[in-house]
Amino acid sequence: MRLPVSNFSVYGAHMSDTISEATLSEFDRDTSVRQREPGVHDTDLSQGWAIGHALNGGYLLATLGRALGETLPHPDPFTITAHYLSATTHGPAVIRSEVVRTGRTLSTGTAGLFQTGADGREVERIRVLASYGDLDTVTGDVRTSAEPPAMPPPGQCFSARDNPAGPDAGPEMGKRLDLRLDPATCGWAVGAPSGRGEMRAWLGLADARDPDPMSLLMAVDALPPTAFEMGLSGWVPTVELTVHVRARPAPGLLRVSVTTVNLAGGFLEEDVEVWDSADRLVAQSRQLARAKVG
Amino acid sequence: MRLPVSNFSVYGAHMSDTISEATLSEFDRDTSVRQREPGVHDTDLSQGWAIGHALNGGYLLATLGRALGETLPHPDPFTITAHYLSATTHGPAVIRSEVVRTGRTLSTGTAGLFQTGADGREVERIRVLASYGDLDTVTGDVRTSAEPPAMPPPGQCFSARDNPAGPDAGPEMGKRLDLRLDPATCGWAVGAPSGRGEMRAWLGLADARDPDPMSLLMAVDALPPTAFEMGLSGWVPTVELTVHVRARPAPGLLRVSVTTVNLAGGFLEEDVEVWDSADRLVAQSRQLARAKVG
Repeated sequence: MRLPVSNFSVYGAHMSDTISEATLSEFDRDTSVRQREPGVHDTDLSQGWAIGHALNGGYLLATLGRALGETLPHPDPFTITAHYLSATTHGPAVIRSEVVRTGRTLSTGTAGLFQTGADGREVERIRVLASYGDLDTVTGDVRTSAEPPAMPPPGQCFSARDNPAGPDAGPEMGKRLDLRLDPATCGWAVGAPSGRGEMRAWLGLADARDPDPMSLLMAVDALPPTAFEMGLSGWVPTVELTVHVRARPAPGLLRVSVTTVNLAGGFLEEDVEVWDSADRLVAQSRQLARAKVG
Repeated sequence: MRLPVSNFSVYGAHMSDTISEATLSEFDRDTSVRQREPGVHDTDLSQGWAIGHALNGGYLLATLGRALGETLPHPDPFTITAHYLSATTHGPAVIRSEVVRTGRTLSTGTAGLFQTGADGREVERIRVLASYGDLDTVTGDVRTSAEPPAMPPPGQCFSARDNPAGPDAGPEMGKRLDLRLDPATCGWAVGAPSGRGEMRAWLGLADARDPDPMSLLMAVDALPPTAFEMGLSGWVPTVELTVHVRARPAPGLLRVSVTTVNLAGGFLEEDVEVWDSADRLVAQSRQLARAKVG
């Protein structure tokens, strides 16, 4: 199967225009898109990124982000917003993109992800609005007053291997990740949530593929919901997710910190910072999600 | 001039379907939209909300928010994202809205604001994606760990009246507002910025109109840029702005707190909390803006 070369920039050493799927990371394979015509991409959404019955919103955003990046003249999502309209299932989907404006340093576009329902009609699952640029042109002065999240080294954090129910007992998506949760935000897993709206983890991909701007779109939605540490259980479906990618991440594990300060009226926000191995704040995101209280 | 009654819900006592503009607040008058046909609204953008040559992004978002609210079946913006494509000038504009999805509790739509250029062609200025609901249905458990911003009472803060250059020396938009800046974040005004990415103020409308969800869309973008307190000068144009309206605000002055933690590569984020007089966190927003360093 031929796939666009642009998917493989992280694989410089192996790059050719006839790379087989076998050389791909799980993330690149499962977010790959095939252009049917300009602005229309087909994709096969993988059950490998499911949490329960639903596919992860970050995985879906990365897939949309890839299609939109192939439609816009700039490669990297600087700011991307998704509204989740209806539950996306694994299997075929089509992404329709539209250029809103092309500029010198930023281009803006919109995209929708559609699946065909049981009645044969297309149903829109997700709508995205984004501005893309080129992170290689983003240089210069850095004045960051934020601090990387304080947490124990990866070896002292909890991974799927530490799950008392077995390493494969968690969500399917967990098998794609190298996720190591800060023990201080793991109380929920043993029935003793801290009550604080915090979740922190080291995060990589299970097959050791290094992070890039597209995988950051997944990383911001990869941790268990802060709602678990606030003592809530059950599904916390995302209504809207906005990600700012601020720098191209260095190779190695990411640190991801999620904070919720306002659970009210059945909604909460999740604020995320993603830090790379070079101690740079590479992404910030916020999502609005529904939360069932009580 | 007849305007849709839906613009006047805050004026219950005066409500009729032939209200004259004279009874309107400046904000309601200047954000009013007239439906030309379903999904198409005309508006006259007012120079009264200018900062220098440009119209304020929050004012424009509120105007777009009103048009989209008349197109969607739900009245209140729960989460709204705007991408600013080109500088909007005062004068006529047309807003084209599209319903993306209609749901029971939330509806999603998109809207674009267009102006006619010198060559007679329409140019898109702003694209918006939003989900609307009904804030009157948002009730129940509130667990907010955030604290209202600590600042002196309004009488001890700086207003336009305290401007040594005269009360009318500031931006045109300042005359529409009752803005009282925390002295701790006013160093920039006397050439002594604190170096911290913080800005705080009490905020009302100059004509004492009480806040509502639409005016919150303006409030999140009404303070001077945090960049001023970080020692930068010049224009900080917004690339993208996302607002979550979390509750209908109580009457009275708002408290608005803006924080920037990451100035890097010519971009910065502004994180905003808006608190109402009943000590509720009524809106959260984040914007990505360009900042010229040095």
